[in-house]
Amino acid sequence: MSNTYQIYLISDSTGETLDRVFLAIKAQFKNIKYDVKSYFFTRTENQVSKIMDEAKKNDNAIILYTIVDTSLAKFLANKGDEKKIPCFSVLGNLIMNFSKLLNQKASHVPSGQHALNEEYYERIEAIQFTMAHDDGNLVEDVDKADLILLGVSRTSKTPTSIYLANRGYKTLNIPLVNEQSIPESLKKNPKLSCVVGLTTEPQRLVDIRKNRMNALKEKENTNYTNINKIEKEINEAKKTFIKYKWPTIDVTRKSVEETAASIIKIYEINKNNG
Amino acid sequence: MSNTYQIYLISDSTGETLDRVFLAIKAQFKNIKYDVKSYFFTRTENQVSKIMDEAKKNDNAIILYTIVDTSLAKFLANKGDEKKIPCFSVLGNLIMNFSKLLNQKASHVPSGQHALNEEYYERIEAIQFTMAHDDGNLVEDVDKADLILLGVSRTSKTPTSIYLANRGYKTLNIPLVNEQSIPESLKKNPKLSCVVGLTTEPQRLVDIRKNRMNALKEKENTNYTNINKIEKEINEAKKTFIKYKWPTIDVTRKSVEETAASIIKIYEINKNNG
Repeated sequence: MSNTYQIYLISDSTGETLDRVFLAIKAQFKNIKYDVKSYFFTRTENQVSKIMDEAKKNDNAIILYTIVDTSLAKFLANKGDEKKIPCFSVLGNLIMNFSKLLNQKASHVPSGQHALNEEYYERIEAIQFTMAHDDGNLVEDVDKADLILLGVSRTSKTPTSIYLANRGYKTLNIPLVNEQSIPESLKKNPKLSCVVGLTTEPQRLVDIRKNRMNALKEKENTNYTNINKIEKEINEAKKTFIKYKWPTIDVTRKSVEETAASIIKIYEINKNNG
Repeated sequence: MSNTYQIYLISDSTGETLDRVFLAIKAQFKNIKYDVKSYFFTRTENQVSKIMDEAKKNDNAIILYTIVDTSLAKFLANKGDEKKIPCFSVLGNLIMNFSKLLNQKASHVPSGQHALNEEYYERIEAIQFTMAHDDGNLVEDVDKADLILLGVSRTSKTPTSIYLANRGYKTLNIPLVNEQSIPESLKKNPKLSCVVGLTTEPQRLVDIRKNRMNALKEKENTNYTNINKIEKEINEAKKTFIKYKWPTIDVTRKSVEETAASIIKIYEINKNNG
C-alpha cells in the first residue's frame, strides 16, 4: 500500500472555500505525502459517480467536499460508504446548525456567494483601482484610496496591495525614497486616508539586494547594498512615519497575508475611532 | 430583541479560511441581517475573554472560530457555554478526523499555512509576473506564462488575471482587437502555453460601452457602441479562437471567480494531456 494520499476536493462551485480549508488542514500535518485533484462545478450524480470510480482506483483516497444540494451530498456520502472511501463534508454541519439557529431554511443552491451583487462590483473596482495605483502611480488620488501603503524598497508593497484589493480595499502604494516621495496633500492632512508604513530589517534588505544584483549580473552598486546606507534609509523612513503618526509594520519574516491582516486590523481601528 | 445578528469571526491566524467559510454559509440564507466583526491573530485566553465579554453585550451574537491550539479552543467553547453564546468551530472536527485517518498527531500550531516556503514564493512571483504582463504588456514573454488570456474588450481580463495570479498562475492577458494583436510566436505555436479566449454577448458589450461613454460624458462614438460592429468584432474573435483551436469562455453573467475556475479546469486538462 502506497503511503501517498490522494486528496479529492469536490466542489459544486469554484472550490475556493475547499482550497482554503484544505490548506489549513494540511498545514497541521508535517509528514504527509499527498497529491491533490480538484473538481469544480460538480452538480450531478453522474459527475460524482465518475469521480468516485476514479478515487476507488487508489488505496489512499480521501474526499473533502463542499456540496450544498442535500440530495447530491447524500449521494456522495453513500457512494463513499459503499466504496469505503473516507469522505468529509466541509460545510454541511455548519449550514445545518446555522439553519436551526436562524430558524430559516438554507437555500441549498450552489454558488450563492458568486452573485453579481454590489459587493462583487466593489471588489472588482478595488482590483482595478489598485492595479492603476501601484508603485507610486497616480498618487494624486490618495483621497480616493481606502488604504495607502508607504514603504521602503522590497517590503512586498505590490503583492500586499493586490491581496488587499482582492479583499475589497482600494489600495495605493508609494515607494518611500525620502520625504519628497509623499504627496503634499497627505503631508498636509496625514489622516486623509488610512496610511500604513512598511519597514524591514536592514540586514534582510542588504541580502535581498545583493541577490538581486547577482541575478541581474550587475556590478555592485555600493549605495544600493551598503549596510550603513540602508540603515540610514530605513531610519529615515521610520522617522517620517513617526512624524506623521502613521502606524508601521515590520514585514521581516511575515507573509503577505499576515502583513495584510495587520493592515486590515489598523483600518478597522481607524474606522471605529474616526 | 433585535433581529440583526452579530457575527464574530475569531481566527488565530489571518482569518482567510474563516472569511471564505462564512461567505459560503451566508450565501445560503437570503433574509438575514447581520454585522460582522473579525478578530485575527487571536492567540491568548485574555484576547478570547475580551471578545466574549464584548459579544455578550449583544442579544444575537454568533461565534465562528478557527483556533488550532486545543486548549485555547476549549477555553473559547467553555466561555461560550457559560455565556450562552453559540460557538462553531470551523476546522476542529476536520483536523481531528484527519489526525485519526493519517494516524498522525496534528501540530496544533497556528499559521502553518503561512510558512515562507517555495509555494509561497511561487505565488508572489506569479502576482509580480501578472502585474507586469497586464493588458498586452511584454507579450514577448508568452512562453514564460502559465496562462494566456486573449479577450475582446470588457471581458474582465485584468481582474481574472489577478485572481489567477493569487492562486499561483503566472498569467498574461492580451486585448484582442484583431489577429495582429496576437504575438507571432503564439501564432506559429498555438500550444506554446495554455491559451484561453474570452468572449461576451454583443448586447452586453454595447450596454457596458454606452454606460462608459455616459460616465465619461463623451459624445457617442458610433464604432464603439454600434451593435453590428460589435457583433462583427466578437465574431472575428471567435473565428480566431477556432482557427488556433483555443478553448473559449463566454463571461456573460459569470463572476471573475467562476471564469477563473473554468480556466483552471482547462489548464488541468491541458496538463494531463500534454
